[in-house]
Amino acid sequence: MTGRLIGVGVGPGDPELLTLKAIAALKEADVVAYFAKAGNVSNARTIVGAHMPDGAEEMPLLYPVTTEIPKEDAAYRDAIRDFYDVSAAAVASYLDDGRTVAVLSEGDPLFYGSYMHIHVRLSPRYPSEVIAGVTGMSGCWSSVGAPMTQGDDVFTVLPATLPEYELERRFADADAAVVMKIGRHLPKVRRALERAGRLDRAIYVERGTMTNASVMMLTDKLDMHAPYFAIVLVPGWESRA
Amino acid sequence: MTGRLIGVGVGPGDPELLTLKAIAALKEADVVAYFAKAGNVSNARTIVGAHMPDGAEEMPLLYPVTTEIPKEDAAYRDAIRDFYDVSAAAVASYLDDGRTVAVLSEGDPLFYGSYMHIHVRLSPRYPSEVIAGVTGMSGCWSSVGAPMTQGDDVFTVLPATLPEYELERRFADADAAVVMKIGRHLPKVRRALERAGRLDRAIYVERGTMTNASVMMLTDKLDMHAPYFAIVLVPGWESRA
Repeated sequence: MTGRLIGVGVGPGDPELLTLKAIAALKEADVVAYFAKAGNVSNARTIVGAHMPDGAEEMPLLYPVTTEIPKEDAAYRDAIRDFYDVSAAAVASYLDDGRTVAVLSEGDPLFYGSYMHIHVRLSPRYPSEVIAGVTGMSGCWSSVGAPMTQGDDVFTVLPATLPEYELERRFADADAAVVMKIGRHLPKVRRALERAGRLDRAIYVERGTMTNASVMMLTDKLDMHAPYFAIVLVPGWESRA
Repeated sequence: MTGRLIGVGVGPGDPELLTLKAIAALKEADVVAYFAKAGNVSNARTIVGAHMPDGAEEMPLLYPVTTEIPKEDAAYRDAIRDFYDVSAAAVASYLDDGRTVAVLSEGDPLFYGSYMHIHVRLSPRYPSEVIAGVTGMSGCWSSVGAPMTQGDDVFTVLPATLPEYELERRFADADAAVVMKIGRHLPKVRRALERAGRLDRAIYVERGTMTNASVMMLTDKLDMHAPYFAIVLVPGWESRA
């Protein structure tokens, strides 16, 4: 009898946004795995702090230090792929022993989550379950109270890494949008929003559902410094009611 | 002292996908409001059944019967707008009395949720809070185990009401997509997916997170009957790993 793989969505940051199902999954886990950068605390592990099962084994999956390799480099992709292969093999060794492994995932596991790299490698071979979680973007627009999408709105999620003309085109092409991984791309995102006529309603959010969140209209942000995980919300609800 | 308005996301259907925060909000509510069609049970009310606070007043907000008016008709829009105005006024009367009103919302309140119609009318005038929930689409792709989006994927949500050429264009333009409100639009959605070269990975989901869910590859669906709330998932994860 092999063990069970459970991808556990732990939500956007507030431990109160954990689901009953996530907490129940932790209770039955023999091993709790989570991704983290070496030397950093795992956000997902912090979120579930109060619900860690007694006696469960913790299994940090530590990203290799890759700061010396440019992200566009094939060597970076190879290093990351090797890391996911090794991580999946480590999880599999517990499953082979008949132990249930919960892999924590910030937000929702199958929506931009690292858990997916384990899932695609192991779910064909082991019994698995994925527990949906509240996404980071839902946490952000809820804390701001921004009415995002309604009725027949087209909604899109865009990485800030897209070229400026692509961002502009896609802002003009959707009723509502979220831009992720802002970081050094903020000036470009702002210009694209302005040219698409969408700047005036855009909201800038840092550390969305943390207690030290910073939220402002993008037009009120005077500097152009933004952390990697900042996001921009473009609500779709205009004057309709 | 006025009361507080709380938009409570109750998730996609499984009561175990309620968050701790939603349950806590119900505990402190004096009034629990929810939308429903006259003569129908409210899904949101069913989801929170085990957590309804003792002694709280229930406030069903019953959609007017509009089946005799075409949805495109201005008379339909007027009837719905009047209904939201009257509903908001009814909620406001409790808030004016200093009572806390929880308005239930399936999925996530500000993401295609009816609660938004109350929110835009009352949040400028009353203290309000929105509690994010697990969306219906997260519930669907998690129950299926479909790896949806990763890395710099562009993700989009489309209503099935879009014209066929618009659906085709947008399927070709995104890494991952969800099509909502399938109903009688299924043949059109299928043709658009085929022409965009995305049909082979599309997944058809009925009653996503219910116990009687029906899930299949869209290519395996031999008939073209689909309920209004069926959705189609187009996962973005190709051969990457």
